Amino acid sequence: MYTLYYSPGTASMVVHLALLEIGADYRLEYVDFDKDAQHSAEYLKLNPGGKVPTLVIDGRPVYESGALLTVLAERHPAAKLIPPPGNPARDAWLQWMVFLSNALMSSYRLWFYPHELGNAEHPPALRAAVQRKIESVWDQLEAHLSAHGPYLLGADFSGVDLMLIMLMRWSRNMPRPATEWPALKRLADLVRARPSWKRLCELEGLSDW
Amino acid sequence: MYTLYYSPGTASMVVHLALLEIGADYRLEYVDFDKDAQHSAEYLKLNPGGKVPTLVIDGRPVYESGALLTVLAERHPAAKLIPPPGNPARDAWLQWMVFLSNALMSSYRLWFYPHELGNAEHPPALRAAVQRKIESVWDQLEAHLSAHGPYLLGADFSGVDLMLIMLMRWSRNMPRPATEWPALKRLADLVRARPSWKRLCELEGLSDW
Repeated sequence: MYTLYYSPGTASMVVHLALLEIGADYRLEYVDFDKDAQHSAEYLKLNPGGKVPTLVIDGRPVYESGALLTVLAERHPAAKLIPPPGNPARDAWLQWMVFLSNALMSSYRLWFYPHELGNAEHPPALRAAVQRKIESVWDQLEAHLSAHGPYLLGADFSGVDLMLIMLMRWSRNMPRPATEWPALKRLADLVRARPSWKRLCELEGLSDW
Repeated sequence: MYTLYYSPGTASMVVHLALLEIGADYRLEYVDFDKDAQHSAEYLKLNPGGKVPTLVIDGRPVYESGALLTVLAERHPAAKLIPPPGNPARDAWLQWMVFLSNALMSSYRLWFYPHELGNAEHPPALRAAVQRKIESVWDQLEAHLSAHGPYLLGADFSGVDLMLIMLMRWSRNMPRPATEWPALKRLADLVRARPSWKRLCELEGLSDW
């Protein structure tokens, strides 16, 4: 049994999508950011960084969305969210999962939490630099997908596409949303057509994409 | 057969350490940063981000050090670098691997490559903020290790400790090196006593720690 500590539209989305793809039984626990619940003493016991998501697996709290995606994909092989051990595509899957965590999630943190770099708002030059960091990742992914797509692993959908769709969505109000890159847009259209996406939007109350 | 594209002391270290722990056959290819070889047309074909490491596995280039650590650990189970599927400690291993990639490697990038945020040198307030980001990770790891150490998974060494030792080493010339946190220092002493560490320092020509 799984319990997902989540906040709508945040990094918990990819874990929620994976749970829906798998068809697993799970319970949702809403972490109310407006009440700063992610920094409550109770929540910090589960997740000392004060971030979402946390997934409680058989009583054990685990965090980091990319790790949770991997854990769920491995525990439910029938959903084919990750290629099995011994398949070369597994290496590529792990590469993209870590790449998206390292290169993209961390840059978004700079974009959305300027106070972590000591500013209420970034000075314009710094803001432009962070934007460039994020867009350079879209450039790199676009080159890959236009040559080897439509999905990150090629012809077949996998769980790492769920991570990418979440990260693409976060750019929707940026000066240049990820959907302006054509191969990325194609991937987004494919993943947004899946039942898991539609159900997630209902459950998390997301009206925009 | 493995070929590791590396530069001494960089993110390729953790992959090199894993190869030594495993006792795998491998070949080293030196990427000469002084000649900007990481941005050569030839290297960018292997690694479009122009970063090290790249590991060529049976002819296929794969990147992201955390992913490569996972791939090698899975392919060589006898080395016990990662707990096997079905073991709850595997979830924690994946959590720490992604956490170190996401929270720590990305912040080091800001520390060592200020031009990526648009500055030849960071203004003092920004530099202090990046330092705080890195030190807050040492605080979080110290709390974990002092309660549940000496290794990240507890009583037993695993491959994710190799990633941590590399990241700790990168702080050695910072205002407050990671070894000033006692439980982190204890882990560093344990990992630096391993034959793989000593051999790595010889092979990569590292005289300081």
